[in-house]
Amino acid sequence: MMKNDLHEIGKRVLASQPFSVLLGAELLSLAAGLAVIRVPVTPDVRQQHGHVHGGVLSYAADNALAFAGGSVLGPGVVTSEFKINYLRPAAGDSLVARAGVVHHGRRQAVCRCDIFAASGRSETLCATAQGTIRKVSSSVSPD
Amino acid sequence: MMKNDLHEIGKRVLASQPFSVLLGAELLSLAAGLAVIRVPVTPDVRQQHGHVHGGVLSYAADNALAFAGGSVLGPGVVTSEFKINYLRPAAGDSLVARAGVVHHGRRQAVCRCDIFAASGRSETLCATAQGTIRKVSSSVSPD
Amino acid sequence: MMKNDLHEIGKRVLASQPFSVLLGAELLSLAAGLAVIRVPVTPDVRQQHGHVHGGVLSYAADNALAFAGGSVLGPGVVTSEFKINYLRPAAGDSLVARAGVVHHGRRQAVCRCDIFAASGRSETLCATAQGTIRKVSSSVSPD
Amino acid sequence: MMKNDLHEIGKRVLASQPFSVLLGAELLSLAAGLAVIRVPVTPDVRQQHGHVHGGVLSYAADNALAFAGGSVLGPGVVTSEFKINYLRPAAGDSLVARAGVVHHGRRQAVCRCDIFAASGRSETLCATAQGTIRKVSSSVSPD
Repeated sequence: MMKNDLHEIGKRVLASQPFSVLLGAELLSLAAGLAVIRVPVTPDVRQQHGHVHGGVLSYAADNALAFAGGSVLGPGVVTSEFKINYLRPAAGDSLVARAGVVHHGRRQAVCRCDIFAASGRSETLCATAQGTIRKVSSSVSPD
Repeated sequence: MMKNDLHEIGKRVLASQPFSVLLGAELLSLAAGLAVIRVPVTPDVRQQHGHVHGGVLSYAADNALAFAGGSVLGPGVVTSEFKINYLRPAAGDSLVARAGVVHHGRRQAVCRCDIFAASGRSETLCATAQGTIRKVSSSVSPD
Repeated sequence: MMKNDLHEIGKRVLASQPFSVLLGAELLSLAAGLAVIRVPVTPDVRQQHGHVHGGVLSYAADNALAFAGGSVLGPGVVTSEFKINYLRPAAGDSLVARAGVVHHGRRQAVCRCDIFAASGRSETLCATAQGTIRKVSSSVSPD
Repeated sequence: MMKNDLHEIGKRVLASQPFSVLLGAELLSLAAGLAVIRVPVTPDVRQQHGHVHGGVLSYAADNALAFAGGSVLGPGVVTSEFKINYLRPAAGDSLVARAGVVHHGRRQAVCRCDIFAASGRSETLCATAQGTIRKVSSSVSPD
């Protein structure tokens, strides 16, 4: 599949996720083994201290990991599990989650994701995640 | 502190999180070492297959873990890290995240959380999480 | 399969792991969805402060999780991934790792494990773990 | 502190861990933010299929993460938590665990570690880990 096709398919998948639409998430790029998702920082995604809620960072990680995994496994994937470490409070214009495949077989991929807070041209690493993406054959059941 | 006071304080903290307000999250209970958060399942929180997006389950886990940790450490806490395993596709009327403290010292608490999809009186375990909550003394910095 | 058969099979599997033999690990019990492994605390398993090395606790977690998973999936399993939180320094006569299956399908099981340091009749929770065990069909390849 | 001093201090710490001595672990390098630990693959560290036991990989991850964290936090550190994904069965002459600091403050460091199986000059990535290392001030208590 051509890289641009993959990106177009990915954008359609993201647009078919109501929760991603609610958050205004955008698939900046998708290539074999790599995915970049941007989430705008609006007042609605904050926690009580004015920073981005950890749940939004974990959403960005979960989704970028899944798109990276799907780029090598095919579109029918689910996140099996992931782990996230929060590094710094996140503030700025947007979150940028960059995920890559560390290793994959036919049925699952282990991926990593760094989540940055972007403000203008400056980016700050705010969280880092690692997880497993699994292919679901002609079904959405996770097992 | 009395249990009811703790619940009231917790409700005010949750109400001061714009992202939790956006999702309609509700603190069903908060007692020393235990927190229960409910998130209504609306069309907005779904993914492309019609189930609840994993990012919403991870939000519920992150927040319930933090409230459980805060119930023993005091209100100024952040989630340091957590890990979540997705067990089944989540559907129903609401998510119910039940978190408890496994162990804590003065500065951090290790907590677990089970996330159920509730439909009427029936509940199905959909995800399980484990993580670390850390006290941030008179500051919001994670370190 | 009868419970006693399962325990016998499990003991033979443990005895066929040279690393478990090196550490003197013992399968105290194995039943559908539950495994208990004991590791004696000898001078050889300590770290620089005299406590049990974290790597021994992580070994006990990894193995107890795998035996719990294998008790419902069948003997040909591998640990896909796990996460461990260390709670207290471990000292005493032995470590006791108790693992249980939280959820499983045909191909994988999500399990939890608590690791205790035992001294006489007293036990102290020292670490807690959560992970995924995966069936490997007629092969030892993890994918 | 000079880089060579750090390496010498690290080697003394490793030599004071009886479990690391039992496994024949060697600190190949230690610099600010980076640690490399080698563990020889002997018959004693295998599991039932002849590969290296996952518990040995998790030991290597735990220890390399802690040395990387200690290289920036100072020698009095403990592993708070980590997560490991197993990618391939490990076989060969030795394991090489390479850990690096992703982010650190004064009291804790978030680190990653890749664990390779080395055979002659060839290396194969077998597992990847991510975790938190914490400074313990003038005490070995984890909290």
